[in-house]
Amino acid sequence: MANKAAPDPSRRSERSRRAIFDAALALVGEIGYEKLTIEGIAARAGVGKQTIYRWWPSKAAVLLDAFTAGIEDDDYAKGFPDTGDLAADLKSVLRATADEFNDPAFEAPYRALAVAGANNEELSRTFVARLMEPGTRVYVERLRAAQEAGEVATGVDVRVAVEMVLSPFSQRWLMRTGPLTHEFVDTLVDQVLNGLRPRG
Amino acid sequence: MANKAAPDPSRRSERSRRAIFDAALALVGEIGYEKLTIEGIAARAGVGKQTIYRWWPSKAAVLLDAFTAGIEDDDYAKGFPDTGDLAADLKSVLRATADEFNDPAFEAPYRALAVAGANNEELSRTFVARLMEPGTRVYVERLRAAQEAGEVATGVDVRVAVEMVLSPFSQRWLMRTGPLTHEFVDTLVDQVLNGLRPRG
Repeated sequence: MANKAAPDPSRRSERSRRAIFDAALALVGEIGYEKLTIEGIAARAGVGKQTIYRWWPSKAAVLLDAFTAGIEDDDYAKGFPDTGDLAADLKSVLRATADEFNDPAFEAPYRALAVAGANNEELSRTFVARLMEPGTRVYVERLRAAQEAGEVATGVDVRVAVEMVLSPFSQRWLMRTGPLTHEFVDTLVDQVLNGLRPRG
Repeated sequence: MANKAAPDPSRRSERSRRAIFDAALALVGEIGYEKLTIEGIAARAGVGKQTIYRWWPSKAAVLLDAFTAGIEDDDYAKGFPDTGDLAADLKSVLRATADEFNDPAFEAPYRALAVAGANNEELSRTFVARLMEPGTRVYVERLRAAQEAGEVATGVDVRVAVEMVLSPFSQRWLMRTGPLTHEFVDTLVDQVLNGLRPRG
């Protein structure tokens, strides 16, 4: 099948992987998780469905890898900023995240996957472990660093503190209970941090 | 149609309403929102589908009324407790709510409706306005009373403070990111309130 003029096979595979990820993310945003099929992804990506089945056992596996690849490209996964000013660091990351969640290109596939996860317990466990947990962990680590630096009181449950920041954000987005504005993010960060500081 | 031996028509209607609500809640938990139909609800409730169409324009309207009726029966809608101890009041209500969300009979239909709402913007607006907002409002009012009593600092955005309590709770449940235990509820309330108190 390969001929001498063909490019490096690993680069060809990488191009197919990208095409499959882009097709999966676009399609799930358009038609939802229930109607998504491997055949549909293959047709949109311009590859044979066997190419997909060779690498992934299910549409859920394709989608989760597509999102994970997107997050790995993202600057913020390279490490949470630590300028020494916890409030400023949280606000800058959350403002950028708000802009991303307000972008329809990101919003549609991520919502489709979140909804499918809320509906399906097994998918949800994978969704949480692969996508939500790594995102949460960088916040937990940043808060632990602040706790070691004396910016956050020693008695604080850092995990619950992170949920106090991230869950109101996620809920406004998922259930559409309020707008994800920079003003909201700033108020949220200030009010959460106010309760975490050591009492003088 | 009515004959002299028939019971009071309003009581008959009330019995039909209850049967329809019970059928709608049971069915949506079993088969999900997408597959729910007025015909299916009518068959389960033992009424003609015209009886349902006479009162409600859609399956969403039936479900929302079924949930609202359930909440109106619930003690906590009769007013948030105000013993003068804000932390104790929040913990007692949230512990009871955790027990309710951990109950499969409540969990299945509420999850089906929440998922359908996350998926469908129009349904979500109604779901939020009819079910989530009234539940949120009683917390906002309790916190405002605490603010007037000097238990909560004047600068606090009470709405965002309520989201800091309720959203981590909802998110753990909806996305299955963690267990809804009494211990979690207590830690959450203590950490949120710690940041709201006036600085002495």
